[in-house]
Amino acid sequence: MNIKELPFTIDAIAKAYAEGVRPEAVIAEAFRRLEAVGDPGIFIHEARETALAEAAALGKPDGRPLWGVPYVAKDNIDVAGMPTTAACPDFEYRPADDAFVVSKLRAAGAICLGKTNLDQFATGLVGVRTPYPVPRNALDPEIVPGGSSAGSAVAVAQGMAAFSLGTDTAGSGRVPAALNSIVGLKPTLGALSSSGVVPACRTLDTISIFAMTVADAWTVFDAACSFDAKDAYSRDISVSDLSAVPPALRIGVPDTKSLIAFDNGMQETDFRGTVAKLASSGATIVELDFEPFYAVARMLYEGAWLAERVSAVGDRLTEKPETLHPTTRAILEPGLALSAVDAFEGQYRLKELERACLNLLAKVDALCVPTIPSFVSVKEIEADPIGPNSLLGTYTNFVNLLDMCGIAIPTGTRADGRPGSVTLLGEKGRDALCAAVALTLEAGSMGATVWERPTHTAIEPGAPRDSEIAIAVCGAHMSGLPLNHQLTDLGGRFLRAAHSAPEYGLYALAGGPPARPGMVRQAKGGGSIALEVWALPKSGVGAFLAGIPAPLGLGTVTLDDGSAVKGFICEAHGIAEAKDITAFCGWRAWLAAGQKTAAQEAVA
Amino acid sequence: MNIKELPFTIDAIAKAYAEGVRPEAVIAEAFRRLEAVGDPGIFIHEARETALAEAAALGKPDGRPLWGVPYVAKDNIDVAGMPTTAACPDFEYRPADDAFVVSKLRAAGAICLGKTNLDQFATGLVGVRTPYPVPRNALDPEIVPGGSSAGSAVAVAQGMAAFSLGTDTAGSGRVPAALNSIVGLKPTLGALSSSGVVPACRTLDTISIFAMTVADAWTVFDAACSFDAKDAYSRDISVSDLSAVPPALRIGVPDTKSLIAFDNGMQETDFRGTVAKLASSGATIVELDFEPFYAVARMLYEGAWLAERVSAVGDRLTEKPETLHPTTRAILEPGLALSAVDAFEGQYRLKELERACLNLLAKVDALCVPTIPSFVSVKEIEADPIGPNSLLGTYTNFVNLLDMCGIAIPTGTRADGRPGSVTLLGEKGRDALCAAVALTLEAGSMGATVWERPTHTAIEPGAPRDSEIAIAVCGAHMSGLPLNHQLTDLGGRFLRAAHSAPEYGLYALAGGPPARPGMVRQAKGGGSIALEVWALPKSGVGAFLAGIPAPLGLGTVTLDDGSAVKGFICEAHGIAEAKDITAFCGWRAWLAAGQKTAAQEAVA
Repeated sequence: MNIKELPFTIDAIAKAYAEGVRPEAVIAEAFRRLEAVGDPGIFIHEARETALAEAAALGKPDGRPLWGVPYVAKDNIDVAGMPTTAACPDFEYRPADDAFVVSKLRAAGAICLGKTNLDQFATGLVGVRTPYPVPRNALDPEIVPGGSSAGSAVAVAQGMAAFSLGTDTAGSGRVPAALNSIVGLKPTLGALSSSGVVPACRTLDTISIFAMTVADAWTVFDAACSFDAKDAYSRDISVSDLSAVPPALRIGVPDTKSLIAFDNGMQETDFRGTVAKLASSGATIVELDFEPFYAVARMLYEGAWLAERVSAVGDRLTEKPETLHPTTRAILEPGLALSAVDAFEGQYRLKELERACLNLLAKVDALCVPTIPSFVSVKEIEADPIGPNSLLGTYTNFVNLLDMCGIAIPTGTRADGRPGSVTLLGEKGRDALCAAVALTLEAGSMGATVWERPTHTAIEPGAPRDSEIAIAVCGAHMSGLPLNHQLTDLGGRFLRAAHSAPEYGLYALAGGPPARPGMVRQAKGGGSIALEVWALPKSGVGAFLAGIPAPLGLGTVTLDDGSAVKGFICEAHGIAEAKDITAFCGWRAWLAAGQKTAAQEAVA
Repeated sequence: MNIKELPFTIDAIAKAYAEGVRPEAVIAEAFRRLEAVGDPGIFIHEARETALAEAAALGKPDGRPLWGVPYVAKDNIDVAGMPTTAACPDFEYRPADDAFVVSKLRAAGAICLGKTNLDQFATGLVGVRTPYPVPRNALDPEIVPGGSSAGSAVAVAQGMAAFSLGTDTAGSGRVPAALNSIVGLKPTLGALSSSGVVPACRTLDTISIFAMTVADAWTVFDAACSFDAKDAYSRDISVSDLSAVPPALRIGVPDTKSLIAFDNGMQETDFRGTVAKLASSGATIVELDFEPFYAVARMLYEGAWLAERVSAVGDRLTEKPETLHPTTRAILEPGLALSAVDAFEGQYRLKELERACLNLLAKVDALCVPTIPSFVSVKEIEADPIGPNSLLGTYTNFVNLLDMCGIAIPTGTRADGRPGSVTLLGEKGRDALCAAVALTLEAGSMGATVWERPTHTAIEPGAPRDSEIAIAVCGAHMSGLPLNHQLTDLGGRFLRAAHSAPEYGLYALAGGPPARPGMVRQAKGGGSIALEVWALPKSGVGAFLAGIPAPLGLGTVTLDDGSAVKGFICEAHGIAEAKDITAFCGWRAWLAAGQKTAAQEAVA
C-alpha cells in the first residue's frame, strides 16, 4: 500500500490498519499532506508530536470505532494540553481537560492533529474574520473557505483529516461544507455536549461534524453523542443506526416564489436536480412558502440573540475592543445597546414564528434546501465584509433558532465546475432520518481530493439496536398511513418491507376511523401478508401499547423466511364481524381496491 | 330551598337547578351577597344586568358542566363587552372578544358576574397595589387579601361566585388562596390559553382557577383547557379524570434545614400535620434540600424577568409613569436598566439551576410545601410595600420558572384561628396527580362561609402512575410464580387482584418450563379468570414484550366490572394443542390441582 494514496475515510483507514499499517504512518502522512497543501491558515495550533505519541501508544487495533483515525478540532473546543484561542490571541488559555466530546472521541481511539482556524468567536459564515492567515478554500482560492469552522472544513476537504469538529450556531457547520464539497452534520441541539466549548450563542450552539461521507459523519456522531450531566443544555438523545428511508417520504422544499438562489441560476438548477432525484426515488415533494423560515433567520443577527454573542466575549468588547477583529467588533457592538426588553420581545416574536414554521413542518418528514444560495468570493467579502456573509446564511440561520437538525451534503459538480450542495433539515431528533435521506443523495467529489466516493452499501435490512425492538406492522401504522406518526413520534425508524409466513388471515376490522386490519395466524387457508418492520426504542413500547385497542395487541409474527419478529397480532374473537381480506395479501392493496370499489359504487 | 343558604359549589348549584331554581335567582343571590359583604374593592366592573340577561337566556338545564354557574374574572382577562383595566384606569380598553378561556367557560354555560380587582398589571402577591379600593381579606380585614388575583379570591371566599379566574406568574393564583382558605389551581403553563390576557411575564403567565373545592377547580379546568392555535405559548395538554392517588406515592418536602416558616411556628406545625397525614396514608416522605428552588425563586424579581413586566406595560413606564401605582412603578423601573445580555445570562443561570431542581424532582412524584411561610398584615405592607410581598412568594416564585404545576388547598384551622394551606407541586403535566393528592388533604372552612365541606368519595386503589401502564397477568408472572421477577426487575409493582369478564377461556399451553397459560376471549363458554393487575413503568414494556413468546402477546383484557386494561392475550392458533383449564377459573387453582396430580403420579 502506498500510504500517499490512502483515502482518509474511516473505512479505508481501518482497512489499512488491518493490513498492518501503523497509526504513526497515518499521522505522519496527515502532516505530509498539510505541508504539501502549504496553507498556513488551516491550523492555529498544530500538534504533530502529541499526535505521533498518541499513535505510537495505541498498540494494536482493538475494534474501537475511531481507532487511530486522525481528526482536527475547531479552536473554540478544548483539547487538553493545547491552547484554545477562538481565533482571538488575547483570549488564549490552556484547558486542563478535554471538552466532553473530545474525551468521547479520545475514548473511541481518535487522534487529534491540532486546533483549526475560525471566524473569531465563531461569528461569521465566511472564514476570513480571523487575525491569523485566512484558510484557503480547498477547491478554489478565489472563493471564501466558509466559516466559522473554516480550518476544520478545509482540513477535511484537503484530505489531511478523516473528520473534524466544527461548531454551528448560524450555519458554521454547514456553509463551509457546501463551499468545500464535503459533508457537514449539525446535530439536534444538546445531542453533543457543549462542555469545554467557547460559546457563541449559548442557547443555540452545537458542535458539528465534517467528513467526506454521510456514513463517516454518522460514525463520529455515534461515538460523540452522550448525555452530559454537567452541561445544562445537554439532552439525553440516543443515536440509532442509519435507517432505511421510509417509503412515503414527504420532503418540503421552498416553492418557486420563495426559493432564493443566485449564480445565474446554477444553484437553482443543481437544487432542482436533487429534488428531481428525490422525487424519482419515490418521495413526495411538498412545496412550502419559506417566508416564516426566512423571518426566523433574519432574527439571528438583527435581533436579540446578538446579545448572546456579546455575553460570550465578556468585558472584551468594552474593555479591550482592540483585541477583536474589526468586523467581529462591528457586528457585536450593536448588541451592547439591546435591552432586556428587546431580548424578551425577540423571544416572543420567535415563538410566534415558530408556530407558523411548525405548522409547515407538520406537513413533511424533512426539508431539503440549497445549503447556500450562491458562492461568495474573497474579493466580494473584502469589498463588503457583512452583506455577502448574511447571504450565505439564507438557508441556515433559522435552523438552530427552531431547534431543528440538519446535514449538508455535496450533490455533484455544477456546470460551472463548482460543487453543488443541499441540506436536509428536520425537527429536533430527526437526525437519523435526515442522514438516511442524505445517504441516498451524496455525490460528486470528496473535497479537493481525487478519491473515489465509495458506493455506499445499501443499508443492511432489519437490525434493531439493543435499545430498540423490531415491530412488524401490517395496517394503519405503515408509512404514509394515518397512525404512522405513533411510531415516528416515539422515535421509531423504518427498517424494511417484509412478508408474513403464508399462514395468516387478514381481516378488515369493524370500527375506525382510521380503518384497521387484524392479522390472525390460522391453521389453514392463510396468505403471506405484506408488512413493514420498524425499529422502536424499547422505552417507547409502553406508550405505543397504551394506544392499541382491542382486539389488537403486540405479540410474535412469523415472517416468510421463517424468522420471528415482534409485531401486531389480533385476538380471534375480534374478527367475528370483520371482513376477510386475506386475498389482497396486504392492507395497502386492500385500501387501493377499496377506494376503487367505493368509487364504482358511487357511479352505480 | 332557601337560596340564601345555597352553597355556591358546582354540585350544589346543579342540584338546585335540577330542583327548579332559576339561574336568574342564583345571579340575583350572588349580587345580594356582594351587597351584604359590602366590600367595594372586590370588583372593578360589576356586570349585574348582563349576567341576569345571560341567566334568563339559558333556558333549561342542558347538562353542560357549568350551566348557570356564576363566576368572576380577574380584570386582566378579556370578557367581551366589559372593560379591561389590569387595575390601571388609563390602560382601559373594551375588548370585542372574550379571552379564549372565557369563551370556553361561556360555552360550558358559566355566567360572568364581572371583573375583579388585582395588584396592578398582576405585579404583586398582596392585593393592595391598586388605585381602586383595596379588597378586604374574606377572613380577617387586618390581613392582606393576597394578590395579585385579590378580588377573584375574595369573591369565591365570600361565597358570591362559585369559582373565579385569576392569573399566576409568581404565585398570584396560590397565595390569595392560602390567605382566604380556598383552593387555587395553577395549571401547567400553556394548558389554559393566554389569548385575551394582559401579560405580566409572557413566558411565565397562566390563567389560574379559584374554587371552594379541588373537585370544582378541576371541573372548571377541564372545561377551560383546550389547545389554542392562536396563542404561541399554548400547549396541547389533555385533562384526565381525577380518580386515584397512586400507591407508593413519594412526596418531597423541604428538609428541616431548608423549611422556611414564621408565625411563631404556627405555619410549620400546620405543614408538619399535613405531611404526617400524607405519611399515614402510605406516602413515602422524601426530605429535600430546597435551596435550588429558592435560588430559582429569587431570580423572578431580582433577575432578568423583570424586563418582561416592563415589556407588558409598554411605553407607559417612561411616557406616563404617573398612571402607574407608585409601588408598581418602583418595582418595574429597575427593569429599564437591564440589558439583553442580562436577560440571556439570567436564562443561562436558570438553566443551570433547573438541572439541579430536576434532579431533586426525579426522586419524587410531587412536592408538598406550605403555600405561604406566614401571614402578612395590611399594616406591615403599608410600612414596607415590598419586603413582606417577597416573603409571600417563598414557595411560589420558582414554580413557573421551572415549568411546574401546582394546587394550593386549605388544610384546616391553625391554633391561632388562621387557615392552614399547603401546595402540591409537580413537574409539567402532573396537574392530575397533584390534584388527586390535594383531594385527600383539603380540609377546614370553605373561605369565609359556614358551608360544610362536602366529603369526597374515597380514592380507588390500584391506579398506575402517569409513567406506568397497568398490565393484567394471568399466569407465571403472578406474585410468587416463576416469571414474576420479569415484572419486578423492570420496576413493576402489584396494584390489585382482579377477575376477567366471564368470556375468557384459559388454556395450559404446550411447552415450558415454566408452564404457562394462555387466555383467549371467546364467543361462548368462557369463565371469569383470576388475574393480577401490575403497574409497569412504560419505559420497561419494550423489554418485557421482548421476553414474551408466541402465541402470547400484550393486548387488551376486559375485566369483570366491564373496564378494560392492557394485559396478556393469546393467539387462537396457539391453543390447538393446549389443554382447556377454564373450569379452574385461574392459573393458581390449576397449578394447585396439577401439582397434586403430579405428586400422586410420582407416588404411583
